[in-house]
Amino acid sequence: MPVLEMIRTYPADITLDRDLMADTVSALIECAQACTACADACLSEPDLAMLGKCVRTNLDCADICDTTAKVLSRHTGYDAGLSVAQLRSCIVACDTCADECAEHAGHHAHCQLCADSCRTCSAACERLMDAMITT
Amino acid sequence: MPVLEMIRTYPADITLDRDLMADTVSALIECAQACTACADACLSEPDLAMLGKCVRTNLDCADICDTTAKVLSRHTGYDAGLSVAQLRSCIVACDTCADECAEHAGHHAHCQLCADSCRTCSAACERLMDAMITT
Amino acid sequence: MPVLEMIRTYPADITLDRDLMADTVSALIECAQACTACADACLSEPDLAMLGKCVRTNLDCADICDTTAKVLSRHTGYDAGLSVAQLRSCIVACDTCADECAEHAGHHAHCQLCADSCRTCSAACERLMDAMITT
Amino acid sequence: MPVLEMIRTYPADITLDRDLMADTVSALIECAQACTACADACLSEPDLAMLGKCVRTNLDCADICDTTAKVLSRHTGYDAGLSVAQLRSCIVACDTCADECAEHAGHHAHCQLCADSCRTCSAACERLMDAMITT
Repeated sequence: MPVLEMIRTYPADITLDRDLMADTVSALIECAQACTACADACLSEPDLAMLGKCVRTNLDCADICDTTAKVLSRHTGYDAGLSVAQLRSCIVACDTCADECAEHAGHHAHCQLCADSCRTCSAACERLMDAMITT
Repeated sequence: MPVLEMIRTYPADITLDRDLMADTVSALIECAQACTACADACLSEPDLAMLGKCVRTNLDCADICDTTAKVLSRHTGYDAGLSVAQLRSCIVACDTCADECAEHAGHHAHCQLCADSCRTCSAACERLMDAMITT
Repeated sequence: MPVLEMIRTYPADITLDRDLMADTVSALIECAQACTACADACLSEPDLAMLGKCVRTNLDCADICDTTAKVLSRHTGYDAGLSVAQLRSCIVACDTCADECAEHAGHHAHCQLCADSCRTCSAACERLMDAMITT
Repeated sequence: MPVLEMIRTYPADITLDRDLMADTVSALIECAQACTACADACLSEPDLAMLGKCVRTNLDCADICDTTAKVLSRHTGYDAGLSVAQLRSCIVACDTCADECAEHAGHHAHCQLCADSCRTCSAACERLMDAMITT
């Protein structure tokens, strides 16, 4: 797993478990890509007129997951307050996108896959946030 | 002001004041650029060895401001919960970066300008967040 | 102009004119925001079914302008080959988005403004690229 | 592989091989994360003063790979000219970052891993670009 290999080479201390960090970052970058792809797949659906809100929710979730992955890929000058605040926002973005995509999952396989990816990502962020708060 | 011109063309209702939204988005994209430039200026300083944390803080603030600007530039399917959560994270990022840059502002003009930009952006985000919570 | 103020504080040499660099970066971040806003405005149009390609073109242009602005905001270890290659891609993205938005400009004011912003940005990138090639 | 699963659900034609597209997007998002992590690891190295250019090169490569992954994750209104131009820039960014990181690979394991990731990504982009040009 490339994220885990990279984090193992970080040359200073990390107060959190490196496997947990790597799992979360991996979930975030997979979710961001799924949301980008789902937004684009919506744009090619015959019922695009019904999917405006879904595209918007996908775009927000993609941007927020990408940024959260970057923040969590940095360990120099770690600031728990900032990481937790960004994780909170990311959990809201993932849950919102999962709910919206779930409404279209019966018609569109990309919405089903994207909703699954958002749920996985939200759960990973929750686990990491819990570890940060109790550390 | 280009951001304000664009928001005036949005074809549906926006529950918040369009000038307030545009001011905040403008502050966010200016702050993101200032942080990107400050990080790079630090990389060319003779005392780079002292600036590792400052670069990291700049990079986080740039990414978070960019993403917050994108979320706030979207009005379709507006979700106050998500916007407020992202604004909260952005305020933490701006305040953290302003504090860190302020420590180097005596030696580096880019840190002084960047700290100013972060304070302006944090204040703009606070105003918009207050308006969102009370709307 | 905040971009120009920041670039003036860069502590080492820049082989290119700082005003020209600042103008281009400003055009890029304005264009990126216009494209993000235009994509979202399209999502709220009654004729969204006709605007799938326009949204896609807007999203590409926003991402590419954002990244080009970041690359051009960095001067440490300047590499003309990379800057020129990214500018070339950005000019294609801006021209493509301007052409697509122009097709909808009669019906949608946001497409008109966005097309204008893309043309301005493309011209700014051409000027800077010419300066880089001849420097 | 999540990227491949998502691309299989795209509801319209894609003129290029879906496995090839998915492999390239996966290489891009892995490379972007490696570059973000390598930049941050550099910031915590005792010899940071020697690594200013390496951090800059990492940041450019991360931004360009992220944007290229997004462009290639979109298939609606596919434009070969834009995709090829962005791939060309990405290949320059990856090759430049690989060369720079290779200079520090003897001292820093993160630079070795990052250089490997950049080489893999550059080769994947070359293969896809060839397929686009001959299609």
